[in-house]
Amino acid sequence: MPIIGMGFYKKLKMKKTVLAYSGGLDTTFCALHLSKDLGYEVHAVLINTGGFSADELQAVESRAKSLGIASFTVLDVTKTYYEEVIKYLVFGNVLKNQTYPLSVSAERILQAKTLAEYAKKIGAKSIAHGSTGAGNDQVRFDMIFQTIIPDIEIITPIRDLKLSREEEIAYLKKHGVSMNFEKAAYSINKGIWGTSVGGKETLSSNQTLPESAWPIQASKTKSEELIIGFEKGEIKSVNGETFKNPVDAILKVHELASPFGIGRDIHVGDTIIGIKGRVGFEAAAALIIIKSHQLLEKHTLTKWQTFWKNQLSEFYGNHLHEGHYLDPVMRNLEAFLESTQEFVTGSVKLILHPFRFQLVGIESGHDLMASKFGSYGEMNKGYTGEDVKGFTRILGNQTAIFHQVNHHEED
Amino acid sequence: MPIIGMGFYKKLKMKKTVLAYSGGLDTTFCALHLSKDLGYEVHAVLINTGGFSADELQAVESRAKSLGIASFTVLDVTKTYYEEVIKYLVFGNVLKNQTYPLSVSAERILQAKTLAEYAKKIGAKSIAHGSTGAGNDQVRFDMIFQTIIPDIEIITPIRDLKLSREEEIAYLKKHGVSMNFEKAAYSINKGIWGTSVGGKETLSSNQTLPESAWPIQASKTKSEELIIGFEKGEIKSVNGETFKNPVDAILKVHELASPFGIGRDIHVGDTIIGIKGRVGFEAAAALIIIKSHQLLEKHTLTKWQTFWKNQLSEFYGNHLHEGHYLDPVMRNLEAFLESTQEFVTGSVKLILHPFRFQLVGIESGHDLMASKFGSYGEMNKGYTGEDVKGFTRILGNQTAIFHQVNHHEED
Amino acid sequence: MPIIGMGFYKKLKMKKTVLAYSGGLDTTFCALHLSKDLGYEVHAVLINTGGFSADELQAVESRAKSLGIASFTVLDVTKTYYEEVIKYLVFGNVLKNQTYPLSVSAERILQAKTLAEYAKKIGAKSIAHGSTGAGNDQVRFDMIFQTIIPDIEIITPIRDLKLSREEEIAYLKKHGVSMNFEKAAYSINKGIWGTSVGGKETLSSNQTLPESAWPIQASKTKSEELIIGFEKGEIKSVNGETFKNPVDAILKVHELASPFGIGRDIHVGDTIIGIKGRVGFEAAAALIIIKSHQLLEKHTLTKWQTFWKNQLSEFYGNHLHEGHYLDPVMRNLEAFLESTQEFVTGSVKLILHPFRFQLVGIESGHDLMASKFGSYGEMNKGYTGEDVKGFTRILGNQTAIFHQVNHHEED
Amino acid sequence: MPIIGMGFYKKLKMKKTVLAYSGGLDTTFCALHLSKDLGYEVHAVLINTGGFSADELQAVESRAKSLGIASFTVLDVTKTYYEEVIKYLVFGNVLKNQTYPLSVSAERILQAKTLAEYAKKIGAKSIAHGSTGAGNDQVRFDMIFQTIIPDIEIITPIRDLKLSREEEIAYLKKHGVSMNFEKAAYSINKGIWGTSVGGKETLSSNQTLPESAWPIQASKTKSEELIIGFEKGEIKSVNGETFKNPVDAILKVHELASPFGIGRDIHVGDTIIGIKGRVGFEAAAALIIIKSHQLLEKHTLTKWQTFWKNQLSEFYGNHLHEGHYLDPVMRNLEAFLESTQEFVTGSVKLILHPFRFQLVGIESGHDLMASKFGSYGEMNKGYTGEDVKGFTRILGNQTAIFHQVNHHEED
Repeated sequence: MPIIGMGFYKKLKMKKTVLAYSGGLDTTFCALHLSKDLGYEVHAVLINTGGFSADELQAVESRAKSLGIASFTVLDVTKTYYEEVIKYLVFGNVLKNQTYPLSVSAERILQAKTLAEYAKKIGAKSIAHGSTGAGNDQVRFDMIFQTIIPDIEIITPIRDLKLSREEEIAYLKKHGVSMNFEKAAYSINKGIWGTSVGGKETLSSNQTLPESAWPIQASKTKSEELIIGFEKGEIKSVNGETFKNPVDAILKVHELASPFGIGRDIHVGDTIIGIKGRVGFEAAAALIIIKSHQLLEKHTLTKWQTFWKNQLSEFYGNHLHEGHYLDPVMRNLEAFLESTQEFVTGSVKLILHPFRFQLVGIESGHDLMASKFGSYGEMNKGYTGEDVKGFTRILGNQTAIFHQVNHHEED
Repeated sequence: MPIIGMGFYKKLKMKKTVLAYSGGLDTTFCALHLSKDLGYEVHAVLINTGGFSADELQAVESRAKSLGIASFTVLDVTKTYYEEVIKYLVFGNVLKNQTYPLSVSAERILQAKTLAEYAKKIGAKSIAHGSTGAGNDQVRFDMIFQTIIPDIEIITPIRDLKLSREEEIAYLKKHGVSMNFEKAAYSINKGIWGTSVGGKETLSSNQTLPESAWPIQASKTKSEELIIGFEKGEIKSVNGETFKNPVDAILKVHELASPFGIGRDIHVGDTIIGIKGRVGFEAAAALIIIKSHQLLEKHTLTKWQTFWKNQLSEFYGNHLHEGHYLDPVMRNLEAFLESTQEFVTGSVKLILHPFRFQLVGIESGHDLMASKFGSYGEMNKGYTGEDVKGFTRILGNQTAIFHQVNHHEED
Repeated sequence: MPIIGMGFYKKLKMKKTVLAYSGGLDTTFCALHLSKDLGYEVHAVLINTGGFSADELQAVESRAKSLGIASFTVLDVTKTYYEEVIKYLVFGNVLKNQTYPLSVSAERILQAKTLAEYAKKIGAKSIAHGSTGAGNDQVRFDMIFQTIIPDIEIITPIRDLKLSREEEIAYLKKHGVSMNFEKAAYSINKGIWGTSVGGKETLSSNQTLPESAWPIQASKTKSEELIIGFEKGEIKSVNGETFKNPVDAILKVHELASPFGIGRDIHVGDTIIGIKGRVGFEAAAALIIIKSHQLLEKHTLTKWQTFWKNQLSEFYGNHLHEGHYLDPVMRNLEAFLESTQEFVTGSVKLILHPFRFQLVGIESGHDLMASKFGSYGEMNKGYTGEDVKGFTRILGNQTAIFHQVNHHEED
Repeated sequence: MPIIGMGFYKKLKMKKTVLAYSGGLDTTFCALHLSKDLGYEVHAVLINTGGFSADELQAVESRAKSLGIASFTVLDVTKTYYEEVIKYLVFGNVLKNQTYPLSVSAERILQAKTLAEYAKKIGAKSIAHGSTGAGNDQVRFDMIFQTIIPDIEIITPIRDLKLSREEEIAYLKKHGVSMNFEKAAYSINKGIWGTSVGGKETLSSNQTLPESAWPIQASKTKSEELIIGFEKGEIKSVNGETFKNPVDAILKVHELASPFGIGRDIHVGDTIIGIKGRVGFEAAAALIIIKSHQLLEKHTLTKWQTFWKNQLSEFYGNHLHEGHYLDPVMRNLEAFLESTQEFVTGSVKLILHPFRFQLVGIESGHDLMASKFGSYGEMNKGYTGEDVKGFTRILGNQTAIFHQVNHHEED
């Protein structure tokens, strides 16, 4: 069995390693293999971005300690995650391919960054993650590690050993590890910005997830009103309740909206490695907050602010998704986005229905639709019909000249 | 009463005029005023872009003939409208501000263009439209007229006389015109790409339209499957039925989907004249077709095709909305869009529910997700884990160098 | 003679007015006409953006005082001009149409803004400028006035009276004004960011300015070396001499380079009013500083920083040129630009030759070309040939899949 | 000596190989090594893109035949190169980083494509090129090969064996190959779109090439006039002489302009592999044609055509430079570019001086500056001062509203 063969890792002399640990099959295998077979001093670190409850963490810790590792640490980075990533996804109304709030890709960034800083802090000589060789995460982790801790050794047993799920299970059973080995029908990743769901149907192009595959089953059936308050683009209140930290406001929206089964969809798009990928997700809070924020912006931003925000946010979201968070252009785009939020303050009213929500309207002291400047189609103030005639004559001047110069032959 | 005062129009010597006629209050006023008060030879033209049934046209014609006009003509341009405008809106997945399929703005373009060509053809010396001085349409009409028929006189009685609805009604009653003068609570504009609904609530920022205001009341409650076939980006079949003309396929989607109350929303955005405008719309077919088309593209286009399509389509939609259809840059963007559609062929399956629809998946011989090239997160073919390591090392090389050069002090 | 006819201005009741005064024919006419004919209390204000010497200002003042005006004020805003406008033109390497550093358009913005604030300060009820009805400046002035002082009356005698140069001269002579009335062959506008030259040839499409038309005649013939130091994108030193204020550094570059006849060109482009315009300019300092700054950026920015800077700067320059400086999107773009300059620190060496300059190279602690990361085409460090093979395989993966899916029939 | 060790290539069973052959040291080594040491049936192919004269080709062929290869073929693709690549670089005025006409990168694309098609045609099982592991060319060649001929084996001896120049020379001498082994001080690559020059100074950031390093020594000192005629964006005539093929027109411009030493510069930019690269180039014809073409466009395109051409061309140039020519987005961008050229017809006059050229002006039946529509700053036709006032009021409406809504506190 190739796993015990030490030859593969014989180049690894440095023994203190940090392992990105989630408690799943792959990272459980890594913990045991690195400790037992290869003699590493494994420091397992679980980075919580809002997806683990206290109970879940307790269970993960118990098992982790049975794997022969040197230490197990939980780092809760949910607030940092909001400050450094989610905030800008809201500012930019980022939905990849007009659909996906980057529920998973966004948190990988912060997990990798936190792990790298932890490894630096404890003086680890290597860092390990459980990514396979077929997905985006391997690129995100490696790329951030090579930037923040360029001299560290990156260890990826699953990718290198090309292990199948069955081989991993056999290995763990042999070593007496007790966990639920029944293959979950769907692979699920949960965080504060949404839960991803991958499985049989998402590997095809023509099927959607069955009702039962969605982690949250819809239970509310009676419509409810929801009011979200924003201050300079950041969510500050929900139904009149003010939150000191936006993370708590996001959790509140999740609590109220997710029982409606809102925010389910399937993302199809380009992976970093060039193939197309497809994954289901459930992200009630992310979608409601982004669409509310965007509506408030429609009232408070000028035409060209909106245009450039859209152009730049698309790139920002793609570049983040592809792991380029540390490219300094991201800081520059964030400076742009932050600057656009100066007057994005006000409240947005919605109605939640089963499986959908409806935007009702906004109230804001910065609303550019203020009726004292004229009402669309009804009354004009501050300008006359003659002004518009002059406006139109000049606005269309170049196109009119173009046609006179180039199309006179048609007359 | 200012209307009878001929002084205002004394500069108008040329009598043969084309009137953009819709049968509504404003254009009925114009027809009568221009004919009776000002002595014009009025050629009323109704440009049908799919919003008028045969019965409706019959009714409009009867009344028109009672207004003293010289001729009444209906030009059905629905197919041209599809060929010259809608087709590109589908190619570009154009939803202004991620919401509005340009239901009204798109058809104004073709109406203006057709009117201009008609005026040229019959040798009219002036052209009249019923726009007020507070909306977008005045700009769209004027701008296209001044480009295609630069020497023509443009007459806009409603804008120039600043008439209130009540004054118009009084005038028409006085002249014995019989029509339903009860002010409809909502102003409605119907075309093949959607129906707009404006009224009390849309003049505010914080209210949505009441259920009763929507022209189509939802009647279907049981979910239905829908399959749309595309060929090079154009809709060709619906539920297995092939249509020779995409216009008929659009009408079929409308017939199947609109009883679900699908496609309702409120558009808020920048008008051409600088104020913010808000309008409700109902566009089941437009939204379903665009979202289906976009899903098919997610499977068949490369990453950078998608990126640039999104960037350019946003501008294309805005520029069209603002009446710049004749700017030659629009033809250039259409050449781009058309070129991207070469392999956008396949079928898309959806499920229609009351007030919403769900995209299930696609089938296409051009699907880049073809599993023989590897499945996301599952198996990689055509490359190895080592390839990805090398890929990542080089892909992140510049960012890593940047951090080593500029952030070494942080170590 | 229409000028004395008071009817035209009879609506103007408010008498305290601020006049944008440059000392040229048009504004001299305005000063006299507004004071003498129309009874205004004229407060003439000359906004100096680096184009007037002390002697020139003295001469302008003497004549101004002979025109019956209430006050004459010079406001030197050169440093504000740098801080609020030029700085960002350098950050963005802004050359409109890849040619023109916005020598005139940029300063109009600050002139209008300063005038508006002055008018507000002294409580003027109207503000006057000498723009004609055929250029960009009228739009720039009016648009900034209507934004900052929306209730003020804007007076534009030259535009309204449609006066010819000859009529203006006759009027001034009649009133005993003594100035050089000989029509200069070329109209010249001088500021710290360049001098524009318009005249006979620039009204055609096929002629360039004759040697004699250029304000600065080339006198240096022997090549000289020039070294410019930048700190976070701002010019800080010239040939080793450090300047506290970038304005002084710009003047130093001008002093050294302009005797070479460097920086002459002709700008052709779209005016705000839709026609094409053409104007000569001479801007040695602007061109040298922008091209040096850009070279330093090529060494210190990442690929995507450069890409987005180029995309956004083009819009920033166009929008500024067209008078939209107060659109808040401009502040957002400035936040982006400023953020990109964090490491644009270093020195650039050039050689000045008659009529041209040559960029030699840069030195910077932030140079990403630092050889320890590998030399292009020579040696690679930090990655192997195998890495590049893997990189290429993945980088080209999607295009390869696309061709296999769609072009197999060609095989 | 590692070269003779067959182990490295033992996996290579298929013997018929195509070698990209240029006659330089690297490909000479490859030819001999593949034939003699590894027993390949080597079909050497030289792809001429305008850089080789008949005499040079003769010399290369003689030596090639002494290396034990199976065949030597010259494919002249200069005209295809123009049709498939250069034409679009002119349409897009492509200068990477505002400087470099892609003299080398553009031709690599066509070389790789031609080689791949040749290999397919003769049924080769492998394809070899002489790229090192430190440059862009390896990526360009590999990426195009893996797309067009995905199943072929790619052989890169220089990259794999990591040979130094000295080792290559020793090997060739040992095998009796006679060529000029003196290391040229500069590495030169010559093609119809320019000549690149790399060497000692370009490996630093702060030095420029010495006069002697430039392949073409300036010999003309007296200024000359040059007139270039374009038809739909393509060069058609030079100084009145019409050329059937644009390639001949380009050669004519080169003949006239290169003796002035025009078109020299140094390109600094991002390589595909993430490091910064620097290379000198000499491209008189490319720069003159692009700048002339761009001037003609300034007169014939509308504002938004210019804007989008600039935005898209930057990406087009970068993507081509990085070897992504076969990404279908390139065809889409070409469709856009081609569409913009419909009226880019006319002639451009320049003056050539030693080391620089000056654009004089253009003549075109499509010139939008036609004076009948008004002259900038002089006379307006087709609109009045009142029109411009109305225009400005509406154009600035949103910004004025924004400031009234958000900045009233400042008053």
